Amino acid sequence: MRNLLIVLSFFLLAALSSAQSQPQLNLMPMPASVQIGTGQLPINQSFSVAVAGNRDAALDGAVQRFVTQLSRQTGIPFRPKPGATATLQIRADHGRQAVQKLGEDESYELTVTDSGAKLTASTSLGVLRGLQTFLQLAQITPTGFAVPAVTIKDQPRFPWRGMLIDVSRHFIPIDVLKRNIDGMAAVKMNVLHWHLSDDQGFRVESKVFPKLTGMGSDSMFYTQEEIRDFIAYAHDRGIRVMPEFDIPGHSRSWFLGYPELSSGTGPYTLEGGGIDPIMDPTRESTYKFLEKFIAEMAKLFPDAYFHIGGDEVDGKQWDANSQIQAFIHAHGMKNNQDLQAYFNQRLQKIVAKNHKIMVGWDEILHPDLPKTIIVQSWRGQESLAAAAKQGYSGLLSFGYYLDLMWPTARHYAVDPMSDAAATLTPEEKSRILGGESCQWAEWVTPENIDSHIWPRNAAIAERLWSPQEVKDVASMYTRMNAVSLDLETLGLTHRSARLHMLHRMAGPADITALRNLADVVEPVKDYNRWSDAKGPIDFHAPLTRMIDAVYPESDVARHFSDLVQTFVQSGYKDQVAEAQIRAWLTTWRDNDARLHPVLDQTFLLQEDELLSQDLSALGTAGLQALDYLDKTQTAPDAWKTQQLALIEQAKTRKADLLLMVAAPVQQLVEASPGQHN
Amino acid sequence: MRNLLIVLSFFLLAALSSAQSQPQLNLMPMPASVQIGTGQLPINQSFSVAVAGNRDAALDGAVQRFVTQLSRQTGIPFRPKPGATATLQIRADHGRQAVQKLGEDESYELTVTDSGAKLTASTSLGVLRGLQTFLQLAQITPTGFAVPAVTIKDQPRFPWRGMLIDVSRHFIPIDVLKRNIDGMAAVKMNVLHWHLSDDQGFRVESKVFPKLTGMGSDSMFYTQEEIRDFIAYAHDRGIRVMPEFDIPGHSRSWFLGYPELSSGTGPYTLEGGGIDPIMDPTRESTYKFLEKFIAEMAKLFPDAYFHIGGDEVDGKQWDANSQIQAFIHAHGMKNNQDLQAYFNQRLQKIVAKNHKIMVGWDEILHPDLPKTIIVQSWRGQESLAAAAKQGYSGLLSFGYYLDLMWPTARHYAVDPMSDAAATLTPEEKSRILGGESCQWAEWVTPENIDSHIWPRNAAIAERLWSPQEVKDVASMYTRMNAVSLDLETLGLTHRSARLHMLHRMAGPADITALRNLADVVEPVKDYNRWSDAKGPIDFHAPLTRMIDAVYPESDVARHFSDLVQTFVQSGYKDQVAEAQIRAWLTTWRDNDARLHPVLDQTFLLQEDELLSQDLSALGTAGLQALDYLDKTQTAPDAWKTQQLALIEQAKTRKADLLLMVAAPVQQLVEASPGQHN
Repeated sequence: MRNLLIVLSFFLLAALSSAQSQPQLNLMPMPASVQIGTGQLPINQSFSVAVAGNRDAALDGAVQRFVTQLSRQTGIPFRPKPGATATLQIRADHGRQAVQKLGEDESYELTVTDSGAKLTASTSLGVLRGLQTFLQLAQITPTGFAVPAVTIKDQPRFPWRGMLIDVSRHFIPIDVLKRNIDGMAAVKMNVLHWHLSDDQGFRVESKVFPKLTGMGSDSMFYTQEEIRDFIAYAHDRGIRVMPEFDIPGHSRSWFLGYPELSSGTGPYTLEGGGIDPIMDPTRESTYKFLEKFIAEMAKLFPDAYFHIGGDEVDGKQWDANSQIQAFIHAHGMKNNQDLQAYFNQRLQKIVAKNHKIMVGWDEILHPDLPKTIIVQSWRGQESLAAAAKQGYSGLLSFGYYLDLMWPTARHYAVDPMSDAAATLTPEEKSRILGGESCQWAEWVTPENIDSHIWPRNAAIAERLWSPQEVKDVASMYTRMNAVSLDLETLGLTHRSARLHMLHRMAGPADITALRNLADVVEPVKDYNRWSDAKGPIDFHAPLTRMIDAVYPESDVARHFSDLVQTFVQSGYKDQVAEAQIRAWLTTWRDNDARLHPVLDQTFLLQEDELLSQDLSALGTAGLQALDYLDKTQTAPDAWKTQQLALIEQAKTRKADLLLMVAAPVQQLVEASPGQHN
Repeated sequence: MRNLLIVLSFFLLAALSSAQSQPQLNLMPMPASVQIGTGQLPINQSFSVAVAGNRDAALDGAVQRFVTQLSRQTGIPFRPKPGATATLQIRADHGRQAVQKLGEDESYELTVTDSGAKLTASTSLGVLRGLQTFLQLAQITPTGFAVPAVTIKDQPRFPWRGMLIDVSRHFIPIDVLKRNIDGMAAVKMNVLHWHLSDDQGFRVESKVFPKLTGMGSDSMFYTQEEIRDFIAYAHDRGIRVMPEFDIPGHSRSWFLGYPELSSGTGPYTLEGGGIDPIMDPTRESTYKFLEKFIAEMAKLFPDAYFHIGGDEVDGKQWDANSQIQAFIHAHGMKNNQDLQAYFNQRLQKIVAKNHKIMVGWDEILHPDLPKTIIVQSWRGQESLAAAAKQGYSGLLSFGYYLDLMWPTARHYAVDPMSDAAATLTPEEKSRILGGESCQWAEWVTPENIDSHIWPRNAAIAERLWSPQEVKDVASMYTRMNAVSLDLETLGLTHRSARLHMLHRMAGPADITALRNLADVVEPVKDYNRWSDAKGPIDFHAPLTRMIDAVYPESDVARHFSDLVQTFVQSGYKDQVAEAQIRAWLTTWRDNDARLHPVLDQTFLLQEDELLSQDLSALGTAGLQALDYLDKTQTAPDAWKTQQLALIEQAKTRKADLLLMVAAPVQQLVEASPGQHN
């Protein structure tokens, strides 16, 4: 018992000690400039806000939401004293554009003293950003809620800071999107890239082509009215909404209602199978269709940018279609790539005619396209740099794929200006507009999508907003974990959903032991979950397994690994670290005995049986290693060989999960003094 | 560590062992008749529902909500196979009344076999009840989600099973009320008693008397449109909505806009102070006002019953008003009670003219009133029985006041037919219509109201629905805890709100130690929280203290106390129980060391410092007592005296909280072999 206590109080103390030296500002993204002053501004019942300068209903709405959220965070129902000077004085010189523009001024200054706060900005968009900073500054203190005295001058590093949400593979209802918009606004992102169509579903009502959703959506789609409402909601929070209709590949859902658009013969089903169908770029009827369709969508989506996808065009249907091959030859094209470039050129003219700027994935990059288009790189900084050199503007998404289940630090290390992009000229660099995180939806539902996005997305948001030199990983994790709690208060469910899902798996049983296991596993990385899939994936199957419930990144494993590093670096002398390590190992050693009866009883946990046994074995191995280290006794070779084999076994995926504490336990076993050391 | 593990796995095993013998049906309220069959009906993707017999949009809506909730519980997105026989076949012979009537048939029969389920009812209201039973039957098994084979015939014991929610002291927004309606429907309650006005606020828009909310509500009230929408929402779920406007007492909020209604001179404020103002029943203008007001409200609220309050009339203003005293003498009345009876008679005529039946609290009982009125007893079964004997119908609320912070078992033991009511004739008994739990809102906010109501309210719902002989307390707790998890899935926040609030109190620090403390304390009982209040309570103050976050009843303390009973009854020989007891005691002993650094850092936790120290002292005392018991060593008198003094100290309220594990620790200390034993 005692050991466990030490571990936990260690975390408490770590959180507090940093708070005691000077106020720990749990800001994310970190502002461009922060000067900490003396004292603090109390937040109490009489807190109030006054708006001067440019003022409109949208800004008043934003201030109202700000006060509501501050009230939720603090639990204080504010009752300003009539006639008193406002606690927070806001002034924006100018209003906002009716349709938010790329590069619209988002800068603000926030000055807080012990007697009041001032937030000033050139535009009310800057005010929105500053209000989020103020919310993050508000913290509990020994004397009450307060905002520390501080002077912040802030503006974004990149003008385009987005998140893509795929709503095709799994339909995500508007209310779930709205709470994610709230989350994006909290971390100062400004573009929702709405991936609205793909093979598995077409999600936007078209009044011109009703069979797009009528046959291609399983009845799960957004009406135009819902879309307009959603765009207004996002605009109120300073977020542009850019639609993506992915063509000519990733477009099976179009062909259920309109098979004449495809390069094959069909018939098509949303479930798929066989060759990936793609659009036929050789028929004029295809362009007539797209002209009408894009004209309709260009009106529905006010944003200046229009994403046409263009990625991963599997040319097999083109190869198999003699008419298409004849077209390629007749027009002196060399290959399918040239045909796609031809398609994109035609497409770009239609998009431009509708006063939109075309955006597409890497693959659209082709010298025949005008320099006005924007290339979004999912392949890496190299293709981003290549585009910039050729005069194209670009966005980075490589490294920001949230569905790959990477640890936050790995995303955080990816910088749009690094690698190949680092060598660009200043003019070329100016073409790199920012980036977007991507939440592809093969493995998420409305229930667990928040936990796939948050809190990791906050770190990507920081990468795109804060100065390039803000990159301390420990600080990032501390701040992200604080912001994560606020995001739940805001209405996101990235933490609470896991609890619900564990309870579902366990039935009415206590979930303490189950949570211990869930705390130290992570889903397999990259596209490795796919490798188990047999045949086409059923996108209507429940996502209710352990892998669907756990966090993409294990905080406990990270803390444990840090402890082991500390212990190793102390030459195995740090007794506090050792006690904490022992406490965790003991918990894990004994966990399988507690969990086993539950695993048997519910079908959703049976697959986790080996995983649970492995965790206990790791606990035992780690404790034995510590015993050898403590006594500086020789660990028998046979023991070591056996433990290392066991650890290798524990490292293999089970139930599509990885035991993240295997590696640090291995370190302990390897460190134990061996016969031949 | 090991000891802790034993404790927790004990709970797991307890939950599972009962599941293994025969299916544990976590039904609450327990149906009138349950016969368990063989096998189970799988719930999988192809689950579907068919409705035959009477069918309308409301029933279709209810079935849709049922499927949605079953999908949330199981995580399965249902995709019935076209043409397949429906898994659940529903048949209602008749529809429902447009306005739900008292005593409308709620019975249903549900038969589940391994191949399908049938739900039949005389009315679609019965179908609503049966669907909730089906949801509670669905459980996780080793082979998938399933409903055990079962035959249930069910109907309520009482026709009136309500909950009062006070929205005057703290305004509760419609969305919070709606999720509580969902919770009530889940446990088959059928009346929301809406306490809409009181001294501290008038919460209903009146178009005839706009100053009622204009001056009497702090701008927090429901529009008539919101009320109509809410009543429809409740009706869809089989719940009547009865309004209460409490007069002539509890009516200060009326007098801000209409001081001429009062017996004093005013001016009045919502904050109050001084003598409680009450309505003047001697002026004809009062009745003219009430005629217009009740006519307006009778139209707004379709329910047949209209509650006029009538409780706790503090006659000081009447005593002080010579005109009123003259009226009393002139009309041959003896006292203020007679004056109130006169008021109630006048009022009853107005209510009846509007085709409503008058309901009021105990105090309105008076032989001059017609037998059609209903008396709601907050004073006890005796006044309920007295009313029944005089020919009046009655409702019991005594014993069901959720704001008194009683343990569930205490509410559960209160039966409308017990004590004085038990001696009534069958005819008199038939006048006891049921009861209502009451959630008075002095100490709740929208944030924590759910945790004050749930899950305890489910046990009261069972008392009012299930046969009188269903009263096993252990079974009640097991079933209530299972239902509690489902209620969170339904959208209630009684568990998650505590987590949010503890996080707020702790700032970004880990809350493990804080939760250990929160787990074993309960708010002071009855009206004892009031005794600390100095002067009038500020109903706009934040409710963010530990007392506001913790559950009214400590599950951990109850489990611990049970363990101690088991240990004592075994003659201190049950080693499993002892190990579990030791594990808890050790956690508590060490908890203060972990928690102390956090307590210092946040103003919301400073008041809990002594409480935390006491808990650790209890842990130490208990462990020492066990040591003496283990060794059957004599515990020194001085030690025992000292520990018992310390325990007495630990039992005293601190920060308005009680340490619920003090009494079982005392048992251990007293049991330790003393010098004079």
